[in-house]
Amino acid sequence: VNAIESLAAIVGPGNIFTDAADLVPYLEEERGLYRGAALAVIRPGSTAEVAGVVKFCASAGIPMVPQGGNTGLCGGGVPPEDGRSVVISTERLTRIRAVDPVDFTLTAEAGCVLAHLQQAAEDAGCLFPLSLGAEGSCRIGGNISTNAGGTNVLRYGNTRDLVLGLEVVLPDGEVWNGLKRLRKDNTGYALQHLFIGAEGTLGIVTACVLKLFPRPREVATAFVALSDLEAALPLFARARTASGDSVTACELVPRRGLELGMRHVPGVRDPFTSPHDWMLLLELSSSRPGGLRDALEEMLGQALEDGLAVDAVIAESAAQRSDFWRIREAIPEAQKKEGGSIKHDVSVATSRVPEMIRRCTTAVEAAMPGVRVVPFGHLGDGNTHFNLTQPIDADKSAFLARWEEMNRIVHDIVVGMEGSISAEHGIGRLKVEELAHYKPAADLDLMARIKGALDPLGLMNPGKILRRP
Amino acid sequence: VNAIESLAAIVGPGNIFTDAADLVPYLEEERGLYRGAALAVIRPGSTAEVAGVVKFCASAGIPMVPQGGNTGLCGGGVPPEDGRSVVISTERLTRIRAVDPVDFTLTAEAGCVLAHLQQAAEDAGCLFPLSLGAEGSCRIGGNISTNAGGTNVLRYGNTRDLVLGLEVVLPDGEVWNGLKRLRKDNTGYALQHLFIGAEGTLGIVTACVLKLFPRPREVATAFVALSDLEAALPLFARARTASGDSVTACELVPRRGLELGMRHVPGVRDPFTSPHDWMLLLELSSSRPGGLRDALEEMLGQALEDGLAVDAVIAESAAQRSDFWRIREAIPEAQKKEGGSIKHDVSVATSRVPEMIRRCTTAVEAAMPGVRVVPFGHLGDGNTHFNLTQPIDADKSAFLARWEEMNRIVHDIVVGMEGSISAEHGIGRLKVEELAHYKPAADLDLMARIKGALDPLGLMNPGKILRRP
Repeated sequence: VNAIESLAAIVGPGNIFTDAADLVPYLEEERGLYRGAALAVIRPGSTAEVAGVVKFCASAGIPMVPQGGNTGLCGGGVPPEDGRSVVISTERLTRIRAVDPVDFTLTAEAGCVLAHLQQAAEDAGCLFPLSLGAEGSCRIGGNISTNAGGTNVLRYGNTRDLVLGLEVVLPDGEVWNGLKRLRKDNTGYALQHLFIGAEGTLGIVTACVLKLFPRPREVATAFVALSDLEAALPLFARARTASGDSVTACELVPRRGLELGMRHVPGVRDPFTSPHDWMLLLELSSSRPGGLRDALEEMLGQALEDGLAVDAVIAESAAQRSDFWRIREAIPEAQKKEGGSIKHDVSVATSRVPEMIRRCTTAVEAAMPGVRVVPFGHLGDGNTHFNLTQPIDADKSAFLARWEEMNRIVHDIVVGMEGSISAEHGIGRLKVEELAHYKPAADLDLMARIKGALDPLGLMNPGKILRRP
Repeated sequence: VNAIESLAAIVGPGNIFTDAADLVPYLEEERGLYRGAALAVIRPGSTAEVAGVVKFCASAGIPMVPQGGNTGLCGGGVPPEDGRSVVISTERLTRIRAVDPVDFTLTAEAGCVLAHLQQAAEDAGCLFPLSLGAEGSCRIGGNISTNAGGTNVLRYGNTRDLVLGLEVVLPDGEVWNGLKRLRKDNTGYALQHLFIGAEGTLGIVTACVLKLFPRPREVATAFVALSDLEAALPLFARARTASGDSVTACELVPRRGLELGMRHVPGVRDPFTSPHDWMLLLELSSSRPGGLRDALEEMLGQALEDGLAVDAVIAESAAQRSDFWRIREAIPEAQKKEGGSIKHDVSVATSRVPEMIRRCTTAVEAAMPGVRVVPFGHLGDGNTHFNLTQPIDADKSAFLARWEEMNRIVHDIVVGMEGSISAEHGIGRLKVEELAHYKPAADLDLMARIKGALDPLGLMNPGKILRRP
């Protein structure tokens, strides 16, 4: 058709796909929850080409779906089924424009794969701390658009906190250049924060300036058996204080998570001689070497004495450290092998995590006898992956059919505790109705007004985050 | 009039001022740049009263000027001269709602004085790190609305980075409750960031949740004589790395700043035996005691060996530490005593600070022979107070009459270097025209669209940040 020819003229005929076979990888996501359709997939090679494509689509009334590495867990990058939209992929925007170890900044295009940016920072003697499971294929534009979390949030913050500046193609095709390298700039509204976490509904992020940090030179990692779940909180606070606020991970591991890992994932071993209900993976890092391990040891010794901890092991080698991490990281994989999982990515105030876990556990166990609760994750951030594994010998599809019912039970409790129904994964398509259900009217109204102000035609990733008007 | 009676019914007759004498302190700001007029000053005692006042004003078409401690440096809290608006003061919203040392959070109303919040955090064994000259009288709602900077930005960020949640009365009188205590929450647009730094033009902040931190238990402070201005950058980077990213202050002091201080401010002494053109106040802090001073000493020893530094003194006592800080803090006071000052609060990428200082110095000295340039401040943040002291024996008012001409010279260079014309003080009334001159059209357009979406009647602090439509 005519539109395809016009778009091909902007990006070159080799960078627009319309054949069904070429489209497949852009229309599905990893977990297979969604399968969309699209007029075409367009792969611009520069910010100017993105702007040209968007300008054309805006004038032709074609809905646009920005896509990075397509690793999101909520379907935010998958086009709708109606086949009227185009996917705009950032995969050719892979240039690192600058790395500045004096400024501690890195300027990169949106399609750069996260692991490549980590490596570029390391090559310059610095650290880019964003780290998450999909880092080998997710792209930084997607990380920014979903405000990705991951395992270093405690010390370095969410993606939002790691961004100094952005370049964005707005829904009308204008380019907003906010590629600042400034640590301080109070000249009007914080525009960049609108686009971070907006999941491509307010424009397409094309480039960014990221903060770098000094590389850690000492890491101390411990696996701690808690006297009970509640002990996690004072232990975490003590670790923060004793380490000069150098806690970079505080991950909760329940006994069932460890046991599932040992059953299904090679290399997962129990670091303790007897079983414990609740464990904590605690990691401290600092670029000031010396003293960190001693501080950890002293803090844990005191915790054992005070009865907060009942056992603890400090990693004596890189291999042992990676064994500890394997326990934590094996949990979702082990759950998959054990059968169906119903997942929740919730957060509450850190001090209320134990209460939330206990209340949600009681409620889902009452509603579904035999369900196996596996709550794990970023305790230090107040973020729990409150995952349910199907009862032993249950029918998987009958179990999964109760997904929304279980969501409602967990989310009711979490929202009642002033928590969030999506701590780090975003809304995408998956949670649009949950958001409409739980967000106060004032919030939804403000968001709709902002969406209307920036994207009056409603063509930019429609139906994500907010319902279609 | 009728409006006054209706407003008095909301807040009580004792909390609305209309007599000229009562109004005075709310209509002027400290530096005497602006003197406004107002129908009344209203002092609501609760969020509900703020909402009631705003709802009434919105329906009656009365412009509203939110005001905190009235310590701003750009006139953002001063009402216009036309006398049509009301000032809504937060001074009665002084309740600390909660301090939680497990969560490291503090929940407070907008009228709390910053120093009181620092004290409340300290009483709970924690640190609230925001610290600035006006802390004895500025109010947290104003700090949030101006995204205040101060002396701890390096390690802890700007006010924006210290806010977890907000409660805001919107321009139509609706209350937006975003008082989250969550470290992670990806459920839609980042509404709170719209209000932070918006200088009250999008609504009135009535309460906030702030982040607390472990208290520092070791502080190491040095005064360093640099071999030249450019040496400040590698020295700062080395200090970050050597200290485990624990640099909490990196302040530039020029020779002239020290000399003016010694002339005008009691207690200012030169820590060195011979004069140096450029000096750095470097402070490291950590809650992990031990090793910080050693790291500083070793780093400075290496810097002396490598020729980055030519002399250095580490504070051996709290008294010596406060002597070092007095040198830095005396500069604005000394400048005031020396005659007229023309001020700039600019930022560039940290790595470009020396180039910016040299280029601006050359340009203003060429335009005004004899002018005495005193660039000082937050080098580590890229933020320089590029202040000019009048030539010796010049006429003060003739000098000050060239304020805008000097601004244009400095701001042209800074903007050409991709810097900011207001790093930490904001826009207020003072820089509305500068912002309109320098901000790209795309930015101004986005800001106007957001203002229109949230405050369609244009009644909330009109004429601040943006020109009146």
